[in-house]
Amino acid sequence: MVSSPNQDTQGSAARKPVAQIRYELLTLGDELLLGLTANSHLTFIGAQLGRRGVMLGRNVTITDEADVIVAQFRESWARADVVITTGGLGPTCDDRTREAIAAVLGQKLVRDEGIVQSIADRFSRLGRKMTDNNLKQADRFEGGEVMINGNGTAPGLWVEQDGKVLVMLPGPPNELHPMFLEQVVPRLAERGLLLDREAFVQLRTAGVGESMLETRLQPIFERYGDALSVAFCAHQGAVDCRVSSPSGRLNYEELAAIARECGALLGEDLMCYGHDSLAKVVSDLLREQEMKLALAETATGGMLANAFTGVHGACKFFAGGVVCYSNDAKMQLLDVPECLLKQHSAVSDECAVALATGAAETLGADYAMAVTGFAGPCTGTMQHPVGT
Amino acid sequence: MVSSPNQDTQGSAARKPVAQIRYELLTLGDELLLGLTANSHLTFIGAQLGRRGVMLGRNVTITDEADVIVAQFRESWARADVVITTGGLGPTCDDRTREAIAAVLGQKLVRDEGIVQSIADRFSRLGRKMTDNNLKQADRFEGGEVMINGNGTAPGLWVEQDGKVLVMLPGPPNELHPMFLEQVVPRLAERGLLLDREAFVQLRTAGVGESMLETRLQPIFERYGDALSVAFCAHQGAVDCRVSSPSGRLNYEELAAIARECGALLGEDLMCYGHDSLAKVVSDLLREQEMKLALAETATGGMLANAFTGVHGACKFFAGGVVCYSNDAKMQLLDVPECLLKQHSAVSDECAVALATGAAETLGADYAMAVTGFAGPCTGTMQHPVGT
Repeated sequence: MVSSPNQDTQGSAARKPVAQIRYELLTLGDELLLGLTANSHLTFIGAQLGRRGVMLGRNVTITDEADVIVAQFRESWARADVVITTGGLGPTCDDRTREAIAAVLGQKLVRDEGIVQSIADRFSRLGRKMTDNNLKQADRFEGGEVMINGNGTAPGLWVEQDGKVLVMLPGPPNELHPMFLEQVVPRLAERGLLLDREAFVQLRTAGVGESMLETRLQPIFERYGDALSVAFCAHQGAVDCRVSSPSGRLNYEELAAIARECGALLGEDLMCYGHDSLAKVVSDLLREQEMKLALAETATGGMLANAFTGVHGACKFFAGGVVCYSNDAKMQLLDVPECLLKQHSAVSDECAVALATGAAETLGADYAMAVTGFAGPCTGTMQHPVGT
Repeated sequence: MVSSPNQDTQGSAARKPVAQIRYELLTLGDELLLGLTANSHLTFIGAQLGRRGVMLGRNVTITDEADVIVAQFRESWARADVVITTGGLGPTCDDRTREAIAAVLGQKLVRDEGIVQSIADRFSRLGRKMTDNNLKQADRFEGGEVMINGNGTAPGLWVEQDGKVLVMLPGPPNELHPMFLEQVVPRLAERGLLLDREAFVQLRTAGVGESMLETRLQPIFERYGDALSVAFCAHQGAVDCRVSSPSGRLNYEELAAIARECGALLGEDLMCYGHDSLAKVVSDLLREQEMKLALAETATGGMLANAFTGVHGACKFFAGGVVCYSNDAKMQLLDVPECLLKQHSAVSDECAVALATGAAETLGADYAMAVTGFAGPCTGTMQHPVGT
């Protein structure tokens, strides 16, 4: 039942159109099945593949027992063109993934002296002693390659066999993400297993519902008939519109031109082209203008501040934020007049403007934004950017 | 290949010890595979089952194409004692889960007049017109039961057949969570497929590392030998310690007594018994004492405020928070003296105390907490509760 190693780099998979190439993701670890850790690998890898024209065929989360890994890997390897695994590459005795998969592939594991050296270097840089079990991480498939891990000890593994590709990635997200983007995506694209660039051009909009967006853009789409494919995707605070041409009758430049025409028609309702968050788009504008932003929040309780401080280099454009749940806090921190709160209530346009003005003045910012609303699952009904 | 309906409620599954009962979770939906939505069902259901003595055997995420559902359900149904599905119960034509699974089970779908009525009532309450496709959601398995959905139109479905249990749940978390806790867990426990109560007693600690915790508690654990099983689980800001007795030689009351002894030894390092967050524990204390809390944050950028405003009824105990990224903001909003920032720097014990004092005074709070640190993936090195 064990297939023989076979270094064919132009297997059957590469001859299919990208959209028909079958990917399966195996996520390993009891901590996922016990709900102790969210399965962020599915979200990350699924999204990255989706952008390059592939929908992940299946994700299976299993324990790291050797017999379970063997059975699941055998099944996925038979069905898929590309199998990606995450986790189980660590130094401890419950990290059995390499051995289990080597058995199914009929491959030997060999110790890679280059990896031994880089693990040893890493330990000496950190001033820690390397224990023997760490050397296990230097094992690679005899007929396979190694992907350098810039942020940890366990390297990624890459195997081409039976016209298929196996990619094994370390579990920690800060190791997996750069390895996937910088090493895995280009290798897969080179072999025709992913598109060379994104499969669609995306417009991200804010402030328009999905059906209204479709109605407004329809006159543009109609001109291209079935050469153009359009998909809408609504998520919190944004609706994305993706234009693509699965038949290939429109090339990337033509799609980009269509997107620009849609963007011009949408005017202020266009947030950006691509995948940036609203906070990132606003931050880029602030940085460009060398301006600073202040925030005042009530029911959103720090979520807005968190979105901005999450953007790289926030100290350059973010003056600060205030979470003022109570009326006292609104009056004391941001000088909102008591009579305004009594006359218009705390959830009112007037209060939002007073909060924003107060935040801009107190924090010495050029722009301020205030969100007010009733605490609950859906809050933040009014947003008032106020220049000062 | 189709098995015949068979209403046996005491199947083979119920005769095994709970820890050996095999659960599989099928999560359906392209949005999961495309990384547009995180698979929160795995995290939620995995954790709930884990607390009742069962580790989920496998989670498979698949598209909602009928043939894919049929193949995967057939495989899981053959292997597992309990299969749980999420999603695919909605009113639209791409919700094919009921039909696909009915085919595998050899069951008929019948329209349930009770569900028809409750869907119609829901629409009339919301003042909306019910379209015909909504009636599809009133279909249940002929040999099965219905679980009422208090927060949506699609009810849950419950089938016992072949000595196994099938549970089908709607996808939206606000519908799934209460249905699972209030209807699914008690039904499974009644049939001996889950423990009647939690499988372990959990101590949640803060401020002690995993290995130090083990060393301190070891003298207590040693007295019970192998009758006692101890597991540690570290997550952000907390280390949990779970004591259990898989052999049953210690009963729940004895385990609770052991946990209390550990708690007494740990003193202030014990956060709580059970699963509450640090924010929830602090909030309960504040409410009990009728006191209010103010926050000052820097690099954590609103995460702390968000943790507290996420607790139910936050307006009773949360006075407000300030995110002061820049030194200007620290001085202007919270009266931190410029000379203090110059002498000790913004990331210092002294600055944290000044921030907390400023927050308590400005916001009229009884307690204040300040976090300061360098922006980066791991921030917030100093926490200073300050009574005023």
